[in-house]
Amino acid sequence: MDRRRERGEITRKTVARQAAAIASVTGLSSMTLATVAEALGISKSSVQAAYPTKQDLQLGAIAQATEIFVAQVITPSFEQPEGLPRLRALTDAWLDYIAQRVFPGGCFMVSNLNDFDSRPGEVRDALARGRKGWLALLARQVVVAQTAGEVAAHPTASMRAFEIDALLAAANLAHNLTDDNTPIETTRELIALRLDDVAR
Amino acid sequence: MDRRRERGEITRKTVARQAAAIASVTGLSSMTLATVAEALGISKSSVQAAYPTKQDLQLGAIAQATEIFVAQVITPSFEQPEGLPRLRALTDAWLDYIAQRVFPGGCFMVSNLNDFDSRPGEVRDALARGRKGWLALLARQVVVAQTAGEVAAHPTASMRAFEIDALLAAANLAHNLTDDNTPIETTRELIALRLDDVAR
Repeated sequence: MDRRRERGEITRKTVARQAAAIASVTGLSSMTLATVAEALGISKSSVQAAYPTKQDLQLGAIAQATEIFVAQVITPSFEQPEGLPRLRALTDAWLDYIAQRVFPGGCFMVSNLNDFDSRPGEVRDALARGRKGWLALLARQVVVAQTAGEVAAHPTASMRAFEIDALLAAANLAHNLTDDNTPIETTRELIALRLDDVAR
Repeated sequence: MDRRRERGEITRKTVARQAAAIASVTGLSSMTLATVAEALGISKSSVQAAYPTKQDLQLGAIAQATEIFVAQVITPSFEQPEGLPRLRALTDAWLDYIAQRVFPGGCFMVSNLNDFDSRPGEVRDALARGRKGWLALLARQVVVAQTAGEVAAHPTASMRAFEIDALLAAANLAHNLTDDNTPIETTRELIALRLDDVAR
């Protein structure tokens, strides 16, 4: 990569990162090229050079937020074997990511999924793809745990993935509203309890 | 009420109802006095006469959405005795309200809570009050069910209310994304399963 191209990539990344941070608070709808430019102290035309339209910037913010989420939550879980250990690592890392406010407005995905769920288009598709991949990753760990006899066969893996994700999203909302960690601990406890259902 | 005042009340209600419908799709942030006026085929100044500022209109939409929610979900549940029967009536009515798209964008509250949860102010306060009342209503039914020995004492009533609300919100999101009823049935089954935990 030549230096000019490299500089361009850095700008795109910086812009996308700022866009993701703003959109976690005000939503991808309210975020504009101008608010991102202002937050970075650069001109609107610099933002526009990296992301010509608002939708380009929205999609850039989603890609950047996904990258941050993967690094914070998913990659570290690979240190654990598949099944219950990796499932615990994933949910614990998710709750830590909320508690630590990696994004100032809590989970970027939860906020924006609920904002765009009734608005068909590329932004919704990108957010829905991320959700689908996340649910599949959770369900895969449940299947392994069920096969190993660590978790009951019913509810099914996809129902359990849905349930775990529901609790995590509720933790995010409650934590954002109250700014205390009680909902995070409630969720941690409920997830552990709901996975601890194999007759002994 | 004189006729002129009455007409004013009708306009306010019509405006608030339209604002609530729009905000369930695009969110209370993206909704404007102009979009509401356009949808109603009236002038922006007529909307402004009823709700002078955007925040007035946002708060009017929340009050109107709450009224609709109470009529659709809460009032009918009073036909059932407190405890498990009323809890089932509440959750079933909630899922029906989503399936029937009482609001075009699914649950008005879920969408907007997730949008405003990181933005302190009167709009967030109004949404958070609604959520608190809803959780207290659910928890109250769990307490009665626990006292009657119909539901196990652990998880606590407030944890169970949190869990039920989390599943309902996830049903709303998944239903909006996929437009099929599978997530609604998954949620109905999970709620029934999680409440069916008294040793027999």
